[in-house]
Amino acid sequence: MTELLPIGYVRNSAETPADLSDVVSRIEVLPEFVQGLEGIEDGEEIVVLFLFHRSLGYDLMVHPKGDERNPLIGVFASRSPRRPNPIGMTQVKLVRREGSSLFVEGLDALNGSPVIDLKPAVRRDQRDIKCK
Amino acid sequence: MTELLPIGYVRNSAETPADLSDVVSRIEVLPEFVQGLEGIEDGEEIVVLFLFHRSLGYDLMVHPKGDERNPLIGVFASRSPRRPNPIGMTQVKLVRREGSSLFVEGLDALNGSPVIDLKPAVRRDQRDIKCK
Repeated sequence: MTELLPIGYVRNSAETPADLSDVVSRIEVLPEFVQGLEGIEDGEEIVVLFLFHRSLGYDLMVHPKGDERNPLIGVFASRSPRRPNPIGMTQVKLVRREGSSLFVEGLDALNGSPVIDLKPAVRRDQRDIKCK
Repeated sequence: MTELLPIGYVRNSAETPADLSDVVSRIEVLPEFVQGLEGIEDGEEIVVLFLFHRSLGYDLMVHPKGDERNPLIGVFASRSPRRPNPIGMTQVKLVRREGSSLFVEGLDALNGSPVIDLKPAVRRDQRDIKCK
């Protein structure tokens, strides 16, 4: 099956999940992929796909937020990092781009997480639809 | 780097991109992952991550929608299937679940696409936020 290729890495101060709230992250895109950023605009909402690189294995049933007081639900009804394919997905605001660096707010990825894709949050043919 | 594992497959009538509009798809989840669907409710918006399994290679600059009249933009500013990691992402409405089958509307994945993850579209701690 397809093997994943990092296109960049997350750089921030979050070493544990407790550090994640409101952290500003820099996504450092590898030189060979920088051209692919053309046309992404400051202020735009983008979706970041990254790997939960510190997560080992998965559970089919999880307590949301890892809190045992929350009733068990299926992993696909949750955002748990312990997933069959340990891919995280977060929509963030691109504060600014400086060359190969994207500064973003609200990315809940730990420092060092490999980034595997970036996508526009809103399809370009649906830009006028803000809310459904 | 991480190797991907299919958790299911897309079944629909779309054999080419031209067939995709308004198609209803069935996502057939593999038996060993069905328990992970617990708690996903009919009518809910979910995000489907799948592989562009017919896409070979990638371009850093693309014409949106493959139409040469559209000016070239970076692949990460587009939803082109020819990406460094050929992962597609679509938010869909779960019409209903029948056992291991999820019937969804609006999934722009071709018949046979491997599904690699399902996530709730809205985080459970943000259910009251419909629009930003």
